[in-house]
Amino acid sequence: MAITIDQIKQLREATGAGILDCRKALEQAGGDYEKAVDFLREKGLAQSAKRSDRTASEGVIDVYSHGKGRVAVVVELNCESDFVAREESFRNLAHELSLQIAASQPRWIREEDIPAEELEREGNIAANRAREEGKPETIIPKIVEGALKKFKDETVLMRQKYVRDESMTVQDLYNGVVVALKENIIIRRFIRWELGEASN
Amino acid sequence: MAITIDQIKQLREATGAGILDCRKALEQAGGDYEKAVDFLREKGLAQSAKRSDRTASEGVIDVYSHGKGRVAVVVELNCESDFVAREESFRNLAHELSLQIAASQPRWIREEDIPAEELEREGNIAANRAREEGKPETIIPKIVEGALKKFKDETVLMRQKYVRDESMTVQDLYNGVVVALKENIIIRRFIRWELGEASN
Repeated sequence: MAITIDQIKQLREATGAGILDCRKALEQAGGDYEKAVDFLREKGLAQSAKRSDRTASEGVIDVYSHGKGRVAVVVELNCESDFVAREESFRNLAHELSLQIAASQPRWIREEDIPAEELEREGNIAANRAREEGKPETIIPKIVEGALKKFKDETVLMRQKYVRDESMTVQDLYNGVVVALKENIIIRRFIRWELGEASN
Repeated sequence: MAITIDQIKQLREATGAGILDCRKALEQAGGDYEKAVDFLREKGLAQSAKRSDRTASEGVIDVYSHGKGRVAVVVELNCESDFVAREESFRNLAHELSLQIAASQPRWIREEDIPAEELEREGNIAANRAREEGKPETIIPKIVEGALKKFKDETVLMRQKYVRDESMTVQDLYNGVVVALKENIIIRRFIRWELGEASN
């Protein structure tokens, strides 16, 4: 298997080992990053094993705490340049997303992040409920469609109404900042913790 | 299967449905919380499905941000009474844990949280490295033992040296607060995010 320069560079940055040692380790490991780290450590060529797959590193991680520590939100927003990362409008967007998540409790960032089982479950509940209510079978697909749209509008961050201005969605808010800053901006991940709730 | 009062209470709190409906839903679902929620929703007896398994709800979630948003830490600390949750020494402990986690990057809270594979991997690396260095087979168990101790001291929060006072461990810091407050205190969960790193 061919080892790329990028793989060698990544391993070298994480371990501090020499270029030739990194290449040899990757070759021995068949390109597997973790195994290559182990190889270097076994040879005494690397001290520690840092996390792999470091990718984009510009942006900001916004933290928000609410209700005297009963709710906490963390959002990571990535961009391309450190210039944009320092921009007030970029940092504001990160903080507005935190407030939005604290208030509106989305479960996913984008529609495509919803697991298929969840949509199926919601669809089944809507269909069974409609049948319980005696709705004719012919209109059930329409009812399910409406229920799923509502479910997505409530649980997907980008589809939620922006809490400060319900005439727009979070997607609209995000689009405005992307257009103004002329840079690719990615909402990478978020958590919303509530005191005493079950961990995910 | 027997449905407990606690199960009914939990379902009732989460859905707002009546006690008898909750009992019936749980019976139909064989005691499964999620299925009972679905049953109530299908019958039109519950609007929404909140997260299950709400347990202890006293304590604090501490958030800490560092390096202009390059690192974020969130720690949840639980206790038994809201009196203790408001105590300054309790809240200080939560914040000291955040600072500790930001600085010392533990991977687990307690020793028993380390997955067996991780210990095996570390042990194998130490053994293979000792063999590479030509160490006699007889002393390898001792070398592995020492390497695992070091690994745990570095990666387990409770075993780390307290960053503000290296003469004590985080366990010592925690024990001091527990003794002073005379209440059971649990470090429930934490995250430490760094900008651009891979998600767990």
